[in-house]
Amino acid sequence: MNKTITVAETAAWLKERDNFLILMHRRPDGDTVGCAGALTGALRELGKNAYVLRNPEITPRYSPYVDDCWAPDDYVPEHIIAVDTASYSLFPKNSEEFAVELCIDHHPSNTFYAQNTCLIEAAASCGEVVYEILVSMAGAISAKSAERLYVAITTDTGCFMFGNTTADTLRVASLLIEAGAPHRKLNKLLFRTKTRSRTIIESMIYSRLEFYYGGAVAISTITRDMMESANADEDDLDDIASLPGSIEGVLAGITLREITSESDCKVSVRTSQNVDAYAISAHFGGGGHKFASGFTIGKTIPEVREELLDTLKEFFPQE
Amino acid sequence: MNKTITVAETAAWLKERDNFLILMHRRPDGDTVGCAGALTGALRELGKNAYVLRNPEITPRYSPYVDDCWAPDDYVPEHIIAVDTASYSLFPKNSEEFAVELCIDHHPSNTFYAQNTCLIEAAASCGEVVYEILVSMAGAISAKSAERLYVAITTDTGCFMFGNTTADTLRVASLLIEAGAPHRKLNKLLFRTKTRSRTIIESMIYSRLEFYYGGAVAISTITRDMMESANADEDDLDDIASLPGSIEGVLAGITLREITSESDCKVSVRTSQNVDAYAISAHFGGGGHKFASGFTIGKTIPEVREELLDTLKEFFPQE
Repeated sequence: MNKTITVAETAAWLKERDNFLILMHRRPDGDTVGCAGALTGALRELGKNAYVLRNPEITPRYSPYVDDCWAPDDYVPEHIIAVDTASYSLFPKNSEEFAVELCIDHHPSNTFYAQNTCLIEAAASCGEVVYEILVSMAGAISAKSAERLYVAITTDTGCFMFGNTTADTLRVASLLIEAGAPHRKLNKLLFRTKTRSRTIIESMIYSRLEFYYGGAVAISTITRDMMESANADEDDLDDIASLPGSIEGVLAGITLREITSESDCKVSVRTSQNVDAYAISAHFGGGGHKFASGFTIGKTIPEVREELLDTLKEFFPQE
Repeated sequence: MNKTITVAETAAWLKERDNFLILMHRRPDGDTVGCAGALTGALRELGKNAYVLRNPEITPRYSPYVDDCWAPDDYVPEHIIAVDTASYSLFPKNSEEFAVELCIDHHPSNTFYAQNTCLIEAAASCGEVVYEILVSMAGAISAKSAERLYVAITTDTGCFMFGNTTADTLRVASLLIEAGAPHRKLNKLLFRTKTRSRTIIESMIYSRLEFYYGGAVAISTITRDMMESANADEDDLDDIASLPGSIEGVLAGITLREITSESDCKVSVRTSQNVDAYAISAHFGGGGHKFASGFTIGKTIPEVREELLDTLKEFFPQE
C-alpha cells in the first residue's frame, strides 16, 4: 500500500538503507537534475553507494550538476528513488523497468505511484524538499550539494522572480549560499547570459509583435526562416513564450511558431488576471493551466492567427 | 565631529527624536525611494512626524512607494536624514540647504558628510540596513514598510540576480515576505513587465549590436532618434547598460548613449572576469567599480567608439 512520509521519516529511511539508484524525469530541468546530483552527493558523503540513472535527454546546460553521478551499466541497485517526477508517465523509456520505492516531489499533481512519497506541495521546487531531507539526514549540507540545490531552486523559480517563489524559497536559498553555493557564478551562467542567436530572435520577435483588443492581446510569431537566419536552436527559445505576455497591458500573450513545415504550428498562450489560457487552448483541442496553455495545429501562421482572433472575441468582448 | 554609529545606536537615535525630514539622492532609484518610504512609515507608526523632501526627479515607476510621504511646503523639520546617498554631491538642488544629521547607507564610497553615519558596506542595498534599523527600533515591521523595503532590495539586486546579492539579502527578503510584502505583485510589476517602448528599444539595440575583439567586446548604441521613434523615456532605459554584457562570450559590454545633443555621450561600461571597467572609464576621466563604470564625454557616438576601441587595445591585446 503506497503511503506518504514526512521529511524526517524520509531522512531516516535513507539512513537505514544503501545502494540507491536515483531517477529523473523526461526533458530533465534544473530542478530534477540538481536534486538528483545533490541527493547522490549527500548519500555518498554518508559512505553509501548512490548513482543516477543516465537520462538520454540531459542537455549541456544541466549536465555539470550530475556528471559524476551516472550509474555504471553493471550497477545493481537495491533501492529506487525518483526526484521531481509527478507521475510514472514522466520517466524516460529506460526508467520504466524500475519500481520506485521513494518519490521526493513538490507537484500537487503527484499520482503517488511510489511506495513512499515525500511531497511538499507548497514548495516552489523539489530542491527545497531535498534540502530539508538532507539537513534532517546529516545535520548539514556540503558546498557541492548546496550548489546543486541552488541550481534546482533558482531554475524552477526564474531566480526567485516567478509567482511560485515563497518566503521559504528565499530562506533555503540564503542557507545554501551560507553553505557554499557559488550563487554569483550560477546566476551569471544560468540567468544573465544570452546567446547571440537569442538576442537576434528576441529582436525579431519584438519588432514583429502585433497588438489587438486595445493592447490586451499580443501575438508573436516565430517562423522557420527566423530560426535559420538567427542560427537559433531549441535551447535559444527557452521560456520564449513568456515574451509577449510580459508587455505592459497585455493580458493574453500568444506565440505562434512554425514547427516542421509552414502548415504546422505550435501555439503557446500565456495569460494574466482573469483571462483563462486553458479555455482559449481548449477551443483548439489543447490543454494546460489557467495562465499557461498550448496546442499544435496543422495550419499556417496567418490561418491560425485569424482563427485565434475570432475565438478571442469571446474573451475580450468589448471590441 | 562626524562619526559612524551602529544599527542599534541608529534605532535609539530615531526613537529619542521627532519631526524628521528624509532626503533621497538624485535620479531616485528603488533603493533610495523604498528606504525613504519605509522609514517614514515606520516613524509614523511610532507616532512621530516624518516626511520625505519632494524629489524633482522622481519617476512614475517608484513614486507609489513614497507618494504619501511628501513634506508640505510649510513643514519645519528638526532632524534631517539621508538614505542611500553616498555623498553630498548626489543630492538634488533642493536638498542642498540641509545639514544632514543621520545618513543610512551601504555604499563603500560614502564620504561621511553626515554628523552620524550608519553604514553597512556588505549590504547589497540600503534597504537591508533600514530593515535592521526598523526591527531594532520597533521589534517588527509593518506590511507597508515590508513592501517598500522589498522594492528597495530587489531593485538594487536585479531581483537577487546581480553579483552584489548575499545570503543576508535573501534572508532579509524572506522575512519581508513573511511580514507581508506582496512579492508576487512586485516581481511581476518591476521585473516581469516591459513597456512597449522598452521592447522597441531593446529590439533596436540588439539589431545594432557591434562585436569586437573576437566577440569579447560588445558595443550598443542609443541615439536620441531611437528614443524618439520608440517613444521611450528614462524609465524605459532601466538597467539597459547591462544588455551588451549579458551576451555569451562578452567580457566588456559598452553602451554609448546620446544625451542632450549629438556630441554629448553617456558611456556605460560593464565587465566580467578580469576586465577592469574602472580602468577603462578612468582613461576618459570617469569612475565606478571594477565591473561597472561610466563617464560622460562631449563627443559624438562615432568619435567615442573610435577612441574607446583604441583604448581597449590595452585590455584585449591579442588582436
